[in-house]
Amino acid sequence: MTNHETAGMRRRRMLQQVGWTLAGASAASGARTAAAAAPAPPPWMTRQGAAADDTPYGSPSAFERSVVRRVRDRSPFMTTASAHAPLQDLAGIITPNGLHHVRSHAGTPAVDPARHRLLVHGMVEHPLSFGMDDLARFPSVSRLHFLECSGNTPLYKTEKIEADWTVQDTHGQVSCAEWTGVRLGDVLAEAGVRPGAAWVLAEGADAAAMTRSVPIEKALDDAILAYAQNGERLRPENGYPLRLLLPGYEGNMNVKWLHRLKLGDQPFETREETSKYTSLLPDGSAKQFNFVMEVKSVITRPSPGRGLDQPGFHEVSGLAWSGRGRITRVEVSTDEGSTWRDAGLQDPVLPKCLTRFRLPWTWDGGPAAVQSRATDETGAVQPTRASLVAERGPNFMYHYNAINTWRIAPGGKTALAV
Amino acid sequence: MTNHETAGMRRRRMLQQVGWTLAGASAASGARTAAAAAPAPPPWMTRQGAAADDTPYGSPSAFERSVVRRVRDRSPFMTTASAHAPLQDLAGIITPNGLHHVRSHAGTPAVDPARHRLLVHGMVEHPLSFGMDDLARFPSVSRLHFLECSGNTPLYKTEKIEADWTVQDTHGQVSCAEWTGVRLGDVLAEAGVRPGAAWVLAEGADAAAMTRSVPIEKALDDAILAYAQNGERLRPENGYPLRLLLPGYEGNMNVKWLHRLKLGDQPFETREETSKYTSLLPDGSAKQFNFVMEVKSVITRPSPGRGLDQPGFHEVSGLAWSGRGRITRVEVSTDEGSTWRDAGLQDPVLPKCLTRFRLPWTWDGGPAAVQSRATDETGAVQPTRASLVAERGPNFMYHYNAINTWRIAPGGKTALAV
Repeated sequence: MTNHETAGMRRRRMLQQVGWTLAGASAASGARTAAAAAPAPPPWMTRQGAAADDTPYGSPSAFERSVVRRVRDRSPFMTTASAHAPLQDLAGIITPNGLHHVRSHAGTPAVDPARHRLLVHGMVEHPLSFGMDDLARFPSVSRLHFLECSGNTPLYKTEKIEADWTVQDTHGQVSCAEWTGVRLGDVLAEAGVRPGAAWVLAEGADAAAMTRSVPIEKALDDAILAYAQNGERLRPENGYPLRLLLPGYEGNMNVKWLHRLKLGDQPFETREETSKYTSLLPDGSAKQFNFVMEVKSVITRPSPGRGLDQPGFHEVSGLAWSGRGRITRVEVSTDEGSTWRDAGLQDPVLPKCLTRFRLPWTWDGGPAAVQSRATDETGAVQPTRASLVAERGPNFMYHYNAINTWRIAPGGKTALAV
Repeated sequence: MTNHETAGMRRRRMLQQVGWTLAGASAASGARTAAAAAPAPPPWMTRQGAAADDTPYGSPSAFERSVVRRVRDRSPFMTTASAHAPLQDLAGIITPNGLHHVRSHAGTPAVDPARHRLLVHGMVEHPLSFGMDDLARFPSVSRLHFLECSGNTPLYKTEKIEADWTVQDTHGQVSCAEWTGVRLGDVLAEAGVRPGAAWVLAEGADAAAMTRSVPIEKALDDAILAYAQNGERLRPENGYPLRLLLPGYEGNMNVKWLHRLKLGDQPFETREETSKYTSLLPDGSAKQFNFVMEVKSVITRPSPGRGLDQPGFHEVSGLAWSGRGRITRVEVSTDEGSTWRDAGLQDPVLPKCLTRFRLPWTWDGGPAAVQSRATDETGAVQPTRASLVAERGPNFMYHYNAINTWRIAPGGKTALAV
């Protein structure tokens, strides 16, 4: 038994180092010395449960009905809305498909997969049209990647910020899934890319006819024509039956309900890359083709609405990601940036994928402010808000990736601080 | 453009090597030279789509309504049923929560998480009782692991096999998810394991009061008290709000609706480890405490009901797993074991986790039989059915992990061969 005791004692020492003791945290929070006998059976042990085939496709417990996507800004045209993922309620790195964030410009079309086709034309040797069955015969690939709307975290312009925003409101336009599909490069090779082709127009089959120009370098690198998400076919609101996946690129370019790819020698200068999804620089010019979502992180626990119930041990936990590759480091401060400690990164740490970080922390019950600062494999470090604003000027909006601050009041109430 | 053409040409050569050519596979399967102009808009482009907040918790497309869990054996007591995951329709390694297989002995109880408690007692220094909030304050861990029912793949006794079984019927009692929870070792350290404690009884709060004995070595190694599955809280039928997760061990031991852990110096000899979940050996004795799910694999595509529609290029794809660690190799035969080729393993390859394998294959249209043979990091190789039966004798049933055969007839119809 020596080995077992040693392992147990080692863990216990670790917990005690951060203030997690029986007399302190767990006893105070309701865990208590219990009678040695088995408890009386709860009511659900006294009757047969629901049959396994009552739920051929299952749903969450009714007790979890508050864990849903939520629209932040209601508008007269709800089809343009953003629905945010409830990051404060999620664990690990996978976003379940029912909670993956949604952003679309004309709502979710009801696409019949048997009638859906993908046209590949423009500067190709052989214009081709593929049905879903044709695409399913190509070699497939699966990758875990995050998707983030370029407008996620609307904290650049402070006048629109509302005091009761939670992490769902501020950061809930990022999600992560295992995507399966066909390498776009394989499909383009089949059509034959003509010399000089430098851009690919991707068009969605929604009423917005969402169109974006993609550099051919990206198309031939790690771009995927995705038909599956976390094992099953794409969800309707995430592009069923086919979407473009451009790992690490802003969400809007990952065109959903993809039905057309046109190759050209110039960007196509669509509305969504001229009037929209560009950023106004201090000199009055627009920053265009700002594709990659830079290194970023956020603490999801504690966070507004999920504050601290008592002093003592708490795990600070959150998510980090970078469109440029793997996360290599996440530091956490509990004193608004005066001191930092390295958080643990949960394996597997994958490129262009959410990474869960965690840090044990003993809260003394006084005022605190928690922050996280991520670094990616290119060495890029998440900037402070002040340095971001100084660099970008007053008119920027998209690609906000500054260090985020949650302020914790005595009593544990936690709120956004900008 | 030279680099791009080279990358494209390289891929194309690869595809051509396995018979994937424009004139062959894709043209024959419906992809065709298309007009260079954009297609007429399909009907779903001509009207606004559904609003983002129509689905605060989303569901699959109505076109995917056949992709569901299915009960193989109907019985008068449906609460005892097994519901199988539709492996033939799944991609990658994640099983979406709505399709995770289900096995329970008294149905799914409707447990109120606010009233659910976990008692830790027996040979501990401090008997403790934890509410869900108490457990949430422990340091957390997330791991991707498969779960497999020890009765998965009921092919040992040939008299019960039905000719129309699909891979859902034969192998659908395995699933894979990202599990998050608390290390069981941390909770046991908090209670204080007494010297001599060697086994942990785990009891579920269902009407079956499911109980199993777990060696303390496993409890202190990688066992997790899991409360989340693929990011969200456990689904009711998978143990909401708390289940035991014993990575690599037979499914039945991963006790759902976990409400009691009792430490003792002997196994508790419960019904589920004496009368059930043991295996009769040739000498008439029962093999007991046969915990680890050994190395195994199955081809999910092609498979019965998902045969081949035409000669030419096809990707053979499937899943491999081992309760002893990582998969290191999967070989695929298309001639019933005469010759074998190494399949590609999709990254990340994780321990005690499903691994997706793929092999490009050109089918000549004649009779074929596809098989996969997995090897794990301990060097264990999936056995043939003949060697399995020779070793185990006529009475075995559980833990069937033999190489599986799908026979393909001219025309492409695919069926189970035993």
